[in-house]
This record gives sequence, C-alpha cells and structure tokens, in this order.
Amino acid sequence: MSTSSSIPTLGHYPLLDRVSVPADMKNLSIEQLTTLAEELRSETINAVSTTGGHLGASLGVVELTVALHAVFNTPDDRVIWDVGHQAYPHKILTGRREQIRTLRQPGGLSGFTRRSESPYDPFGAAHSSTSISAGLGMAVAHHLYAEDHPSYRERNVISVIGDGSISAGMAYEAMNNAGAMGGKGAERLIVILNDNEMSIAPPVGAMSNYLSRLMTSRRFLTLRDMAGKLAKRLPSRIERTAKRAEEYARGMITGGTLFEELGFYYIGPVDGHDMNQLVPILRNLRDAEDKGPVLLHVITEKGRGYKPAESAGDKYHAVARFDVETGKQQKAPAGPPTYTDVFSRELLHRANQDDKVVAITAAMPSGTGLDRMAQQHPDRYFDVGIAEQHAVTFAAGIASEGMRPFCAIYSTFLQRAYDQVMHDVALQNLPVRFAVDRAGLVGADGATHAGSFDLNYLCCLPNMTVMAPSDELELLHMTATAWAHDSGPIALRYPRGAGLGLSLPEEGEILEIGKGRIVRASEGEGVAILALGPRLHEALKAAETLEKHGIAVTVADARFAKPVDEALIEQLARQHKVFITIEDGAPGGFSTQVVQHLANTGLLDQVRFRPMALPDTWIDHNTPAAQYEEAGLTAHHIADLALKALDGKAEA
Amino acid sequence: MSTSSSIPTLGHYPLLDRVSVPADMKNLSIEQLTTLAEELRSETINAVSTTGGHLGASLGVVELTVALHAVFNTPDDRVIWDVGHQAYPHKILTGRREQIRTLRQPGGLSGFTRRSESPYDPFGAAHSSTSISAGLGMAVAHHLYAEDHPSYRERNVISVIGDGSISAGMAYEAMNNAGAMGGKGAERLIVILNDNEMSIAPPVGAMSNYLSRLMTSRRFLTLRDMAGKLAKRLPSRIERTAKRAEEYARGMITGGTLFEELGFYYIGPVDGHDMNQLVPILRNLRDAEDKGPVLLHVITEKGRGYKPAESAGDKYHAVARFDVETGKQQKAPAGPPTYTDVFSRELLHRANQDDKVVAITAAMPSGTGLDRMAQQHPDRYFDVGIAEQHAVTFAAGIASEGMRPFCAIYSTFLQRAYDQVMHDVALQNLPVRFAVDRAGLVGADGATHAGSFDLNYLCCLPNMTVMAPSDELELLHMTATAWAHDSGPIALRYPRGAGLGLSLPEEGEILEIGKGRIVRASEGEGVAILALGPRLHEALKAAETLEKHGIAVTVADARFAKPVDEALIEQLARQHKVFITIEDGAPGGFSTQVVQHLANTGLLDQVRFRPMALPDTWIDHNTPAAQYEEAGLTAHHIADLALKALDGKAEA
Repeated sequence: MSTSSSIPTLGHYPLLDRVSVPADMKNLSIEQLTTLAEELRSETINAVSTTGGHLGASLGVVELTVALHAVFNTPDDRVIWDVGHQAYPHKILTGRREQIRTLRQPGGLSGFTRRSESPYDPFGAAHSSTSISAGLGMAVAHHLYAEDHPSYRERNVISVIGDGSISAGMAYEAMNNAGAMGGKGAERLIVILNDNEMSIAPPVGAMSNYLSRLMTSRRFLTLRDMAGKLAKRLPSRIERTAKRAEEYARGMITGGTLFEELGFYYIGPVDGHDMNQLVPILRNLRDAEDKGPVLLHVITEKGRGYKPAESAGDKYHAVARFDVETGKQQKAPAGPPTYTDVFSRELLHRANQDDKVVAITAAMPSGTGLDRMAQQHPDRYFDVGIAEQHAVTFAAGIASEGMRPFCAIYSTFLQRAYDQVMHDVALQNLPVRFAVDRAGLVGADGATHAGSFDLNYLCCLPNMTVMAPSDELELLHMTATAWAHDSGPIALRYPRGAGLGLSLPEEGEILEIGKGRIVRASEGEGVAILALGPRLHEALKAAETLEKHGIAVTVADARFAKPVDEALIEQLARQHKVFITIEDGAPGGFSTQVVQHLANTGLLDQVRFRPMALPDTWIDHNTPAAQYEEAGLTAHHIADLALKALDGKAEA
Repeated sequence: MSTSSSIPTLGHYPLLDRVSVPADMKNLSIEQLTTLAEELRSETINAVSTTGGHLGASLGVVELTVALHAVFNTPDDRVIWDVGHQAYPHKILTGRREQIRTLRQPGGLSGFTRRSESPYDPFGAAHSSTSISAGLGMAVAHHLYAEDHPSYRERNVISVIGDGSISAGMAYEAMNNAGAMGGKGAERLIVILNDNEMSIAPPVGAMSNYLSRLMTSRRFLTLRDMAGKLAKRLPSRIERTAKRAEEYARGMITGGTLFEELGFYYIGPVDGHDMNQLVPILRNLRDAEDKGPVLLHVITEKGRGYKPAESAGDKYHAVARFDVETGKQQKAPAGPPTYTDVFSRELLHRANQDDKVVAITAAMPSGTGLDRMAQQHPDRYFDVGIAEQHAVTFAAGIASEGMRPFCAIYSTFLQRAYDQVMHDVALQNLPVRFAVDRAGLVGADGATHAGSFDLNYLCCLPNMTVMAPSDELELLHMTATAWAHDSGPIALRYPRGAGLGLSLPEEGEILEIGKGRIVRASEGEGVAILALGPRLHEALKAAETLEKHGIAVTVADARFAKPVDEALIEQLARQHKVFITIEDGAPGGFSTQVVQHLANTGLLDQVRFRPMALPDTWIDHNTPAAQYEEAGLTAHHIADLALKALDGKAEA
C-alpha cells in the first residue's frame, strides 16, 4: 500500500467543487479520480471535525467510493453500504455536500444511509450485515423487471460489506442463497468485501482468521493477473471447476476457496486505496455478462490518510468534534460515570468473588463495558463477534451447566436474538442475565439504534424478569440482583449516557424481585405516577408543578417491569384518583403488566388510568432531551396529562 | 449402504428389553449393537404408528443414536439433538421407553428434547440450528469447571445437526466462534453433521450443494483411512496445514476444506447406518486428547429401514397414526380447507394477475402453502432455506424495487427475523407482506411452536399494520388487502388448522385498513366484546349464554390489531358497561392499542375494561381446544368474566 497522504487542509477543492453528483465524474481520468479522492478525504475529515461521527470507516473507503461512482451507473446501479456509517464520502459525492456539516445534527443528515435522504441510498442501514440480502432482493427484482424492460438486465447491484459484518449469520444466509440462485438475478450481484481487519473492535472468529490468511498468503492481484481471471466473459462454472482443480494440482491457490464453495466467484485481494487497480477491476466486473455472484476482496485501512486516525487504537471509529491539525478530540466535560460504567464495575466486583460469572459480548467489548472483564478475567470473557443469535444461545448453554452468564447486548441489537431469548432461554427458564444497554432513546444515532421495543418483546415472555433502573445507584443494585437471580432469566435495561452522579457504595444491594418503592409519598388522593426507569425524575418534576396547583402527587419507582409490584399497584390505585404509568419504550411493554393487574382486581374501574409511553412514530436523531420532548415524555407532558385526567377531560 | 431391513414386527426385543439406560449397553459388541439398532428401529416405528409424529428423521438416526450412547458417557457427556424431533430413539434408550407411546399426547412426552423430561436431554430444542451454540456453551462451562474439578476435562459435548439446519446463519455464527476459540473449551466439541439431504423439504442453498459434492466426490472412509486420519492424538494445526498442502499438491482432497477453513477438523463422509464404522470412529474421537472442534460428516437416509417411509416423497417427515404393515396413514376426516390453503389460493389468484407478486419461504414450501407458487410461478418463488433473517431482508430488497413480496413464515419462526422486520422493513416503511401462519396455540407441537408473541412484537413497531382473520373468509379478504397495500408493511396472522367450511368467493375483497365490524349488535347497555381473530366465535357463544341471563351483548370483530378502529372502540365503550377484548396472543399485543385509545379519549374511565389474552405461562402440547381451555380463552371464561365485571367484582 502507498503511504498516507499528509494532513489535509481546508480550502479549495478544484475537482471536488465540480462534482456534485456521480454523473460529473464520468470523464475523469484515473489520475484525476485519484486527486478527487484526496480532496474528498480532506473534505470528509474537515466536515466530521465539526460534527463528530464515524470517521475511521469513512476514511477507509474514500477511494472505493470514488471508484464505484465513477465506474457504475448510480443510482440505477445500486450501491448498498452495509451498516451505512462509512457512507460520509458517498453522501458528499451524491448531492449532499452542502448538508454534510449537518451530519448527525438535529434536523440534519443521518449518520447512516437512508432511503428518504437520496435516491443514491437504495437501502438504509445502521445495523450490520443486511446488505447482501437486500442486494440480492434488488437483483432479483431487476431480473423480473427485465422481462418487460430489457434495460434492467444491465443493472448491477453492489453490496459493500466489512469483514466484521460478514461474520454475522445473516450475511452467510444471504451468500448461501445467492451462491445457489443461478438464473434468477444473482448474476448481477457484486459483493465487495471491505477487509480492514477492524469493525468497532478487532474482529474475531474463524472467518476473520481465514481472511487474514487470504490476505497474507497472497500478493495483491496485478492487472495482468486480472486479465487472466477476468476476460470479457468470465469462465463458466464448469471451466472454473476445471481450472480450480488444475490450480490445486499446482498447489498454487491458497485462498478464496471458501467463497468459491459457497458459489461466489472470488477475486482478490485488491488494494482498496489504489485507483489504478480499483477502476479497471470494477470496469471489468461491470462489463462482464455472465459473472454470477462475485466476491471482490478489497483490502483497506480504517482511518486511512489521516495520521491521528491511523495511529489511534480504534482508528477513530466514532469521534467527537476534533481539531484537524492535531486530531485532538473535544473532550466531554468531566461528569458522572455512565450507566455502562456502573454496570461494568459491579459485574467485575461480582466476578472477582464468584468464579461462575461469565461475560459475553457480540463485538461490543467497550460499548458494553465488558472490556474490564476481558482484562481481569479473560478466561471468563467471550467476544463472539457480530453474532447476537449465537451469543444468546451460547449463554444459554453456559447457564444450563450452572454458571452465571451475563450477556451484554444493546437493546436494539438484542432484537437480532429474539427467538433465542424466547426458545433457548425463557422457555427453558435458564438463568441468563441480559444486560440490555442503550435502552430508550439514544440521541445522535437516531431511530435505528433506539432501544424502544425491548420491554414489549421481553415482558411478554413467561419466566422473564425485567428490571429498569431509574438512576445509576439502582443499576448497581439491579446488577447485583441479576447476579443473585438463579431461578430464571432476568434482564436489566438501562439508558445510554451518564448517571446523576450519585455516590455509589462498594457493592450493589440485592433487591427483592417484583418490589417497587415509593419515592415521593403524599397524603391527598390526587395523582399517582408509577415510573419505570429514568423518567422517574420527570415524574418528580411534574409532581412539584402539580403541587403548586394544590394537587397531591405520589411518585413511585416500579423498578420491575415484570413481575410488577401488585401490592404497590393496588395501593396506588386505591388511594388516588388518577394513576399514570410512564416508561421509555413503546406502548404496552410495562403498562400491560399494570393494566392486567388493575383489570384482574377490578381497580381499573375505580381509578383514571393513563399509560404514557413512546409515540407510535420513529424519532429521528437529536439530543436525548429533545427526543423525549418530541416523544411527549417530559415533566410538563406528565403534569398536563394529570391535570386533564383530574378534570375528566380527554387528552386526544 | 446396506439395504433396508424388512418390515419390522411388533413383539419381543431380546436386547432392547435389557437396555433401559445407556449404561446397560456398555458391554455390547458391535454386532449386538447392530441388532439393538434393528430392535430400536422396530420399536420406534411401532410406537409412532400409534401416536403419529416425526418418524422419518428418527429412523435416519437409529444407528447413530445407539453408537453415541454406547461410546460416550451420557449424560455426563452431553448429546444435543438439533431441532430435537429426531430424538424418539434417543428417548427410548434413555429411560423413557415406557412412556414412548404417550409421545405428543396430552400430558405425555414432548415431541422434542426437553430438559425437564430427562437428564439425557441437556438442551431442549424444536427450532433449528441452536445445537452448536448451546454445545459450545457447555464445553466452555466444562472447561471452566475443570480448573477445580479435573474430571470435567474428560467431558465431551456432541451436537448433532442436520444438513438443513447447518444452513442457518446461527449455526455458522457458532462454528465461526468455535473454530477460533482455541484453549477455552471448544477442544471437546464434536459436531456431527447428519447429512440426509432432506430437512422438511429438500434443502436448498450453496452449502447444500457443497455437501452434495463432498458426498459424491468421495467414497466413504474406511477404517484404514481413519487410522491415518485419527491417531490416538490428532495432528496439531500446523501439521494439519502441512498435510493439507501436501494433499492439495497431490490433487487428492476434494472436500471438507470449507469446514477446515472455519477451524474445524473435518472427518468424513461416513456411513451413518454402519455400526462397524460409527463405533470405532466415535471411540477414536472420544479418546483423542487435543482434538479441537471436530466436524464428523455422517451420511444417513431419512426414513431408513422402513419401506413406506423410504419410498415416500417426504420420507415420513411428520406422520399421522399409521398401519405398520402397509404404512398407510390414518386420514384426517375430509373437512374444510385450512387457513393455509385459503391464503395460498388467494395469493396464487393475485399472482396470476399481477407480475409484481413474489413469494418467499424459509424452507417451508408446503407448510406455508407456497408450493402452489413454486409450481405455477417458479420465477417468482424463492425458498431461501432455513434463513428467516435473510428471508425478511431479501423481501425488503424486493419491496424496495416496487415489487409486492409476500414473506410467509410461521409466527414462532418470524421471531428469528425480528430485527429485520424492525430495521429493514418497518423503519423503511417498505411494503413487505408478512403471512404469519401458525399464530396462536398450535396443538401437538406445544409451546416451542406456539405463535403467542407476534402481536406483541409486531404491533409495537411504527408503520406496521397487523390483521387477524376470525375465519377463512376473512383471511381471503385480508390476503387481498395485503396484496393491495403498497404504502407500508402489513402482516396477516392466522391459525393452524381448518377453517369453518364457509363458502368462498372467487377472490377476496379489499378491506378498509383499520376498520372492524360489528358481528352481533345489541340494544341494551350490557357487554361489548371486541375479538381479534378466531376467538370471535367463542365470544359469540359467550354472548348466547349471557343473553340467557338477560344481558345484552354486542360482539365485534376487530379485524385489525393495528391500527385499531377508533370509532368502533368509542362506540362500544360509550354504549356498554363492560368492554372485553380477547386475542389469542400474550397480553398487550392487541389490547394495548385499545387501552391507549380508551385512555386518550377518557373513555377508559367510563367503561369496565377487561382485556383477555393468553396467560403468562407456557402451554404444553395438547389439542388446541384443550390448550385454549387451559389458557382461559373459551366461551365460558368470557361469560364468567363478563358476569363478574357487571357485578363489579374482582376476578383474580
């Protein structure tokens, strides 16, 4: 690979200024495209320095982005960026340069690809490993359209997927399907494996080892190799098999076989930063007629071309705003520890004393706080890669042998393992501890990453216990409680970000399962608010407002979404006119548990029950505070609802 | 392979009668084990002839079952049967022979493996592809225990997985993890790939093609081959690599590479019906010390040894009671068409007229009724294999191009693709049509296959429309409605089994989205019952009972779980004292939508609201009628609840 370019400077971009959409690149020479890529890299760095975001991945694909749009006929040819967080250069080249400094800002561009944002984003993403499935669907649709509209026959679909993402089962399912789908459209599917040996953390697993072997055992393909491999018309399968047998016999091939066995034509590895390689190869692929599904293995470097990123351990995977000259990131003001920190601390504390504690992450060691376990107890720490389904059933297997596994997965990614939670854990009543981080609304990552549904999909499962702390001290206790809970599965779901700065004891207390607590008692018979999770503090603020109106308000912390505290619910219902529940999830997760008990006891007829939850809409990226304001889950919304309910008025 | 044995006869089993647990087999010779297998096969056939069940898969693994229990030290060594429906011979050999004729009967043995049933069932199953993950978890736990208890070092974990199941992403995730997990316990994991070229339907996909090539390109291993491959101590990885290079050079190896690249030691193929091969190989594997994760590729024949099964197209995958002599299955009395049939018919009708209709199944062509599409429109029919995650995002890709994909997946298996439904379909508002078959309680397959949660996990998603027909005519209309609904995702969820026998028009009517209907009007102000799905008919029966008590009852069919019919809800709430909702799912799926609207309008304060749903327990296999009785969702439960609510009494 060539060396990194020097630190980019803000300023005039002679070529980039002339390119607002890919059509403007069609007559550029390879040399000019190389220059354009340099300018694009510089613009990307400068833009992200003002917004923060996923810089490292974007820098790794600058040349690939330019080459793809220069060679293919986008947007008619579909380019799908897996995960979509590496698409900043793509956004700049596809009509969104003027908005690029609004990236991840309220009302601005999404940090991921998004169909509603541009026709050049044919498929939105943010979770990993979806691109081959989506691309295959598009290729199949084009094939069907081609019966009536022959021009569709020329359309290519390109799925760009990272080496971390390709380890997920979903990507394998898609390859397994595409590799055997002759004649139904898969012919025009090109999978580009963007191999940078990094996802968020270094990737793990046998596939990753395999790719490393592929890369180290072979020199980059030269154009001459390519000429042999890629004639105008690629060899048919039979010729290919014969050729492979011959190559085996000569002992020449050391790689690619795995993809070939899955029915893909493997080409690579190729230097993903060398336009002189990328452009001719992509042109050949574009023009080949009966190529079958192709896997083009491209080697790139995360953070490429920006020294501070290249030399950082995480390659600037996700950065705050930073100074372009020095690469120094804006530090968040020192504040209280995050929920993740507090969970991580208590988990380590328990693991230090208890050999049966095991920690499992799906490629998120630092995001989930399990990096501490990795350092202190590597024998009881497992990073299974981007493989949530396996993570959960692996944890179930460990639990079935009497160990105490903590499976730490973000709320939004636990959706990937829902069946395993149901079938392997809850049904068998195995004591897997689910540490469900990033529950509720999550800020700049937007709707794709919001943890809005876990209360719904977990509380409906028999045997499942679900807790949500209202602050970090409660999380400490709930982590301890989960540790001690051997009689069945238990989940603790907690938000992204910092706690309140409460002082924390040495170890968490073990809470009684299914018991809530009254946080603010009242004498009168006005309003009861039963909060699950951190919305409790909005409830307390609302109570102050209501008190000024002379209304007595009791505020309670449910602690448990399931099982609910039946005695507490009965008490609140009996002693108040209005009974509000509030939760930071979609309607019906926690509140259903309350409604069922109120209905069973007939108390539902005696109290004005009002459940508050997220609205039935997707909430875009913004600050969490603004998101909750939009969601209608802040103090003034609670107070308004209480007043209307007391008046017996409808709120709709 | 040897030829099939003759038709087995009921009677005396000299060897089997002496074996009630695996310990009783330890001193048997290979010849005796062969005879034992014959007896076991006969007993299995005779037992299933009286109960019905998954015969074909069980017959395929009779020899393997005997060999495993003869060689390994079960239950300390763990044998995990993937899916678990092939475990009937295993149940007979592990202390459950006396109950084997209660299989799948009310109160009897489960049709799958089950932890609560026997210590020889270390992990329950019923959904596919979980066994490698679970087995790896157990192996890891044993490794950790071995620090203090050295005997754990000897424990083996054997996961037996079919060639259909290994195509699922989850199995790949597990292999990817196991293959790279040196030194943490994976050394004692043995995966037995039970390759019978059949799951429920013939398996599809590149992996399946690969396995076929492996099988056809190599003769079965002989014991002499084995001696070379499997010394007392297997070759270390380095030696292995050197050996492989040498074998490549000699052009000798045509297979196994894919698994080797994933870090497994591949052995095979082996004749899975030849005890003379199985026993020595398994002994070698048991005694090898540093074997690393092993994949033993065993070739078997589904339905083996029972002529009627061997010659049937589906190899007696799942049979009714049958006559042992003739193989003739008891026919269900001719009855009305099933819900699946009605869906299938209307889908085909629309596909005949509309080129944009595409049908997708995940390895269930006949179960979902898509076999009609396969026959009539093979170009627009896709069986993606056991790969629900891919199926959904593939459908999303197709929808993104303006086609009209129907993705037909059982309710319980759609759990496998929850994140894809949320992230790829609902968030992008893509018009994928989900045909969610087997919703509600499903009878003999029990809790693992119940479709209890789809209303919960689907209704919470913004943009999602969810319908449930109360009878097959309604399903006809809803299939048409889904077809016509291009503005976003839509799901129709319907039960297993036969409809009411209603006469059906040529084509379904397109219903207005979010509109229910009153089925039984009343003048008085008594009770309103708003039913979602077929429980409507129980509501109607309850209404008759209540009428005898002089109580006016209105019964309405919600049709839509989401969006709900707000005008209808308001009308029912205003005109009645008691308002009951009923649904055949876990609490909070449909009822949440009703509660939210009643609370928003303040009507919740004016009516006695009572939501009825499945209880918070797992309901075992039984007839669906008995299951609903147990669930408390039949006419007399509704009537009781209504009477108590009218009296203002609590029901708890």
